[in-house]
Formats: sequence, C-alpha cells, structure tokens
Amino acid sequence: MLLPTRRLSIESARRGRWDTARVEAFSDGVFAIAITLLVLDIHVPPSEFDNLWHGIVREWPSYLGYATSFLTIGGIWLAHHGVFRRLRYADNAVMRINLVLLMAVAFLPYPTRLIAEAIRNSDAERAAVIFYGLNLLVISTLFSALWGAVARDRKLLEPDVTEGELRSILVASSPNIAFYVVATVLAIVAPHVAAVGYLLIAIVAVVRVQGDEPTTDAPVPRVEPE
Amino acid sequence: MLLPTRRLSIESARRGRWDTARVEAFSDGVFAIAITLLVLDIHVPPSEFDNLWHGIVREWPSYLGYATSFLTIGGIWLAHHGVFRRLRYADNAVMRINLVLLMAVAFLPYPTRLIAEAIRNSDAERAAVIFYGLNLLVISTLFSALWGAVARDRKLLEPDVTEGELRSILVASSPNIAFYVVATVLAIVAPHVAAVGYLLIAIVAVVRVQGDEPTTDAPVPRVEPE
Amino acid sequence: MLLPTRRLSIESARRGRWDTARVEAFSDGVFAIAITLLVLDIHVPPSEFDNLWHGIVREWPSYLGYATSFLTIGGIWLAHHGVFRRLRYADNAVMRINLVLLMAVAFLPYPTRLIAEAIRNSDAERAAVIFYGLNLLVISTLFSALWGAVARDRKLLEPDVTEGELRSILVASSPNIAFYVVATVLAIVAPHVAAVGYLLIAIVAVVRVQGDEPTTDAPVPRVEPE
Amino acid sequence: MLLPTRRLSIESARRGRWDTARVEAFSDGVFAIAITLLVLDIHVPPSEFDNLWHGIVREWPSYLGYATSFLTIGGIWLAHHGVFRRLRYADNAVMRINLVLLMAVAFLPYPTRLIAEAIRNSDAERAAVIFYGLNLLVISTLFSALWGAVARDRKLLEPDVTEGELRSILVASSPNIAFYVVATVLAIVAPHVAAVGYLLIAIVAVVRVQGDEPTTDAPVPRVEPE
Repeated sequence: MLLPTRRLSIESARRGRWDTARVEAFSDGVFAIAITLLVLDIHVPPSEFDNLWHGIVREWPSYLGYATSFLTIGGIWLAHHGVFRRLRYADNAVMRINLVLLMAVAFLPYPTRLIAEAIRNSDAERAAVIFYGLNLLVISTLFSALWGAVARDRKLLEPDVTEGELRSILVASSPNIAFYVVATVLAIVAPHVAAVGYLLIAIVAVVRVQGDEPTTDAPVPRVEPE
Repeated sequence: MLLPTRRLSIESARRGRWDTARVEAFSDGVFAIAITLLVLDIHVPPSEFDNLWHGIVREWPSYLGYATSFLTIGGIWLAHHGVFRRLRYADNAVMRINLVLLMAVAFLPYPTRLIAEAIRNSDAERAAVIFYGLNLLVISTLFSALWGAVARDRKLLEPDVTEGELRSILVASSPNIAFYVVATVLAIVAPHVAAVGYLLIAIVAVVRVQGDEPTTDAPVPRVEPE
Repeated sequence: MLLPTRRLSIESARRGRWDTARVEAFSDGVFAIAITLLVLDIHVPPSEFDNLWHGIVREWPSYLGYATSFLTIGGIWLAHHGVFRRLRYADNAVMRINLVLLMAVAFLPYPTRLIAEAIRNSDAERAAVIFYGLNLLVISTLFSALWGAVARDRKLLEPDVTEGELRSILVASSPNIAFYVVATVLAIVAPHVAAVGYLLIAIVAVVRVQGDEPTTDAPVPRVEPE
Repeated sequence: MLLPTRRLSIESARRGRWDTARVEAFSDGVFAIAITLLVLDIHVPPSEFDNLWHGIVREWPSYLGYATSFLTIGGIWLAHHGVFRRLRYADNAVMRINLVLLMAVAFLPYPTRLIAEAIRNSDAERAAVIFYGLNLLVISTLFSALWGAVARDRKLLEPDVTEGELRSILVASSPNIAFYVVATVLAIVAPHVAAVGYLLIAIVAVVRVQGDEPTTDAPVPRVEPE
C-alpha cells in the first residue's frame, strides 16, 4: 500500500512539493468560518424579551467569549500568514501539523459556547474556563510545532529569511504557551480573572504580530535573541 | 517579548509590509459567511404549519432583517473592495482596524436575530432596533477609521490615487455615520420607521458605491470636495 | 452626497471598472456556504432513535430537498462561472444584480427547510413547494437579468466572445424560467410531482452547462440560434 | 434546447475547457465549511452543567465523530489537491463528478451527528455507524471515479504526469474503498470497533498522501505497479 505512494513521490520529483497557495486558501477558509460561526451561539432567551436591554446586558459572558475567540483566531491567522509568506513550499510534516492545527482552531467555538453557558453557574464556570484554556494551549503548542517544522528545514523557506528572523519568531511564539499555562492554572482559583486573561493574551498577540516594515534602508544588523 | 518582534521587522525590511491579497481573501470569507448565515435564523414555528402561507407571511420581520443585513454587509464589501484595490500594501494599523471591523460585521447576525424575534413584542422592539442601529454605527465608524488609516499614509496607496479621490471617499463614508445616528435616535420614538430606515440606508449605500468608470478619456480635472 | 462619488469615478478613470476576480471569489464563497449549510437542517428527531433505520428513511423529504437545492445552486455556480470567465470587467449594474442574485441564492436554505418540515403535513406541503418554486423562479430570473446586463454592453465582454455565443447563453437560460413557472403551477395540484420536477430541472441544468470544448480546430461557423 | 449549448461549445473552442482555478476555490470552500460546521453539533446538555467535567467527558462520541470526519475530509482535501494540481483543465465529466463528490462530502456532518447522538443508545448505534460508513464508502467511490475520469483522458493532464503516477494514484485510492467496505460490514457485529476503524482509516489516509518530494535528482525509473 505504501509502495505505490512512494514511487509516485519519486516520479513527480520535478513538480516541487506542496504548493502553499491552496493550503493558505483552505486555512483561511477554516479560520474565517470558525471566526464567523461564533456569533451563532449568542442568544437572548425568550424569557428576557420583556426587558430586552437587561437581557442584552446579561449576555456579557457571550460577548467576552466572542471577543476572546475572535481575537485569538484573528491573531493565529495573522501569525499563520507570517509563517506562510516565508515558505517556498510546504512538506508533508507541515501539511499534517497544519491540518491538526486547523482541527484545534475549528474546535474553539465549542469551549467558547461552554464558557458563555457556564459562567452563570459557579460550579461549572471553573471547568469551562480551564477547558477553554486547554484548547488555547493546544492551539498555541501546535502553532509552535508548525513553525518548528518549518525552521528545521531551511530548504522550505524563502532564501532571504535570516537566521535571526527564524529564531525570533520561535521566541515570540513561546511566551504565548507560557501565558496560557499560567492563565489556565489561574483558572483553578479564579476563573473570572483567567477568562479576562485569555482576552488580554489575544489582544497582546494581535498587537505584537508585525508586518514587514521597511522603516530602515540601512544594512540590517544580525542580532541574536537571548 | 517585544524586542525580538521589533528586531524581526527590521530584518525582514526588504519584504514589503502586509500583502493585501490574503487580507482580502480572509475578509471576503468573513463577509460571505456572515451574509450567508443570516438565513439560519429564519424559521416558521411548527404551530404555524396548519396555515403555512399565513406563517410564511408572518415572518416578514425576518425578511426585513435578512434584506437589511445582507445589503448592509454587501455594501460594506463593495466599499471594502474599493479601499483595498487602491492599496499597495497594508500596515499594522490597517490590519488591526480591519480585524476589528470584521469582528463587528460578523456580530451583525445577532442583533438581526433579535429584531426578528422582538418586533412582535412591542416592549422589546425598541431595544432591538436601537441595538441593531448601534451595531451599524460601530461598523460604519470602523470603516471610516479604516479609510482614515489608509489616507493618513500616502505610501500605502497606489501611486495613481489622487488627493481628490482620497478625500471624496472619506466624504462619501461620513454621511453613513450621520444617517445611522439619525436612524438610531429615531428608533427611540418610532422603531418600525427606523427599521425601514436601515434598509433604505443599505440600499442607498449599495447604489452609491461606484466602480471606476472610464467614461472620459479627457484629462481629469482635480475637484476639491466641499 | 452623490457629487463626490461621481467625481471619484471620473478621477479614477484609468483604473478599469470592477475587477472580476474578487467578485468571483466572494460569489463562490456565498455559493459554497449556502450549499454546505443545507445539511444543518437534516435531523432525525430523538423519538426515532429506537428504530433509527426507520427514522433515517423517514427523513427522505430532507434528502430530496438537500439534493435539489445542492444541485440547483451547483448549476447556478457552473453557469455563473460561464458568465464571469467571459467578462473583462463588471460594471455597476452587473455588481448590483449579482449581489441581489446572491441574496436570493443564500435565501434558498429557508424554503428547503420548509419543504422538509411540511411534506408530512398535507395542508402545508402545497404552500411549501410553491414557495420553494417561487424562490427558484426569482433566482432564475435574476440570473437571466445578470446575463442580460452583460450582453447589453459588448465592452464588458472579452473580445473573442461571439454574437452567437451571447445569444445562445440567453436562450439557454430562458427555458429554466419557463420550467420553473410550469413546475410551480403544477405544485398547486400535485406538490409531490412538482418537488421531483425541481430536482429534475436541477439535474438537467447541471448536465446542460458545458465548458469550452476544443473539439474542432476547424474555423468556427457562426450559427444564429432560432 | 441542447442545440444552442452545443453550438456555444464549438464557438468558444479557443477558450480551453473548464479552468481549474475556480473549481479548486469552490471545492476548497465546501471542504473548509463542511469541516468547520462539525463543531456546531457538539453540545453538553444543560442537565450536565452541575458536574461539567463529567459532562465534557461524556461527550466523547462527539469528539470521536469530530476527529474522524475532520480527518476524513482533510484527507480528501489533500488527495483532491493532488488530483487537481496534475490537471491542465477539467472536462464536463470531471466537473459533474466533482459536484456530486462535494455533495457527498457536505452531507457527512449529518451521519456524524447521528453517531454522536446514537452511540449511547445501543439499539441505534449500529444503524448510525453503518450509515456513516456508507457515506464514507460513497465519498471514497466518487473520489476514485473522479480520478478515473481524469485518467481516461490524457489530454486533461499536465504533460509531465507519467503513466506510473496515474496508475499508482488509482491503486492508492482503491484500498480505501476496500477498507470502508470491511469497516462497514464490521459495524454490523461491532459498531464501536468500526467507529474507531473509520478514525484509523482517516489517519492512515492523511499520512499516506504525499506531496511531490524532490528527494532524487537522478533520472526517474518508470515503475509499473502490480
């Protein structure tokens, strides 16, 4: 069963590996859909329609969840964009890690929904916030693994990507994992604080992602992080 | 934490900033999904199936909401298209404002649903229509902010975009904000009228957006608006 | 309010009109989402889980609706593709008709749902099938209007599109309107037959759409239809 | 009715057949949406919120269904990508088989939902797992038919696709059909085992799909499979 496949990959050697354009389009589709489905879970229960303003305000956990998940996925999308524009092509490992990353991202609306439903139930909110944090931790780890798989093989990268750039993206994505570990542990004692913490991490992640700014025309000094 | 990122952006200086192609694809995805999800909230309750025509007609608030939100998002999409085809690349501010704009657009199905549910309850309809108007106001303001961020930095724009073009888009997007303020205030006293007003604003916005018409080959006179 | 816009369109005269690439991407998004949302409305009620095969079979109206709407939208997508690959650019009329066409296509999951729910209720099924047929009639009419708007202005078309091609697409899209009128009228007396009729029309439409086949290298004879 | 269409296809002979770019974009859209909608069906019932961890764990059939369907569609997407990057253009048969394939893929969330709901009901789970397996079997068969339609006509393929490549893809996609037949038959006696089997088949399919690896620069030996 594996033999024909291996033969195939040798025969088509001149074709390059996985072209990144369709991977990006597919990933963008999943990010865009996951981000837009979040709104389907915001509902004012019919019993609240007699005082709708009150009902709208009472839905604040849904808004917090919506904003957090939207900005988290938005930040992942920006960072994903940052990885793929540096790729010449993807190899099999990158394709598979990317697929599992998308699986984790597309899963996020479920714990988001749990938080919105549980936050009024003091017994359930702890579990919901920890579960949400674990999902974020998995996403963050998979993203680091994606970049790790890219960084392992210089041939995957565009030739003008520098060593410093490589390592600094890896360094920049590591703190997120640490943050999510801290926030998830914090959720055990203070779920509300952790829930706000996830939102702050998402905002910081969106603000931190930087495009390529041509602010200097001077020769670029190679700086080694750490 | 910020240092490696800053270093990165210096090192990759030759790469240009944010390429607009993938931003457009992602934004189009969010617009297309938000616009298509609207139909999920239109339901004839089972009790109406004994006289289904009556039940179908009774759902008119849902159709009004569907048409209004569809055309509003459609108009935003056309205008978004108008901004991005004039961009050479996006900077960090444009990327972030765009992400928040998408967050506000993807939120619109929620107040649309509220209007459809509330319009038969005279207590709730006022709140629902005002809440919907506030969402439109936020979208409109963010769109102006997006164009403002673009207009601030001439380097972001294609070289053949004129000063007059710049200012006239800004002028053209401002009336929408004023309209939404008026309609939302109107909603306090006459929610039904305001609901129809939102639809009219959306239709006007779709009709007003113009492609680039090569109707004249004569040299273009520079006209200063206002 | 209109003045700055008009000025704008004159100033940007050298830019061409509406580029078709992003319109196609956005339309494809709406088609793909509408087509994929259809499955959300297929449910076996919990009471049927004691005899699940029976429950699965009993859902046949949902499968009929799914197949009909999927193939109808699929056929529209193929035909839409056929129109847009012949376009050099879109003008304002094409953009607006296209937006209203998408609004009608994205609406189709709602009557599809009604058919699936109503077909077991003999009072409701007639109304549901007629309502569904009216939606198809509107879609079909808007599609003809789209192609009519394209055909009116030769400048919108690629230079190698012939007069015969133009007219034959118009002729080919007209029978659909007639078919939908007939099937919808038929629905008044025989809703089940009409429901199957819609499926047949969709299948015929998918089969009839032809790509451009380079079967002849001989000079192409100009044939006038009718 | 058919005549104008046939005439059309002759007249536009110089245009090539169906351009693959928009077919890929549309198919990617359907894959991405079907894959992302799966999460909408995962719910913890309100009665479980008093012990949410327990409720989260009890949802394991939903997670199994989510992972299986996500990886199955992901594997189909990778294989679809593999077919279309070898195509110069699609003919009418490829377009129609592709549309029916998308219809079967977009249907998968429905049996996924049934499995998640039925697995706690020992009467229903057998039917649900078999029904799910039949859907996978249909998808797998349609995918083979798609590649068969491509392989039948060498003119559809890029000129550098070898005979061995052609046959090895056909060989590689056949075992999936056999696996699904085996797993579906197994479902009659041991539904739980079959459910895990579907997941394993999906994982194997994702791992087996290979990009084009330029591991050798040596001339490629033509190997005939079997």
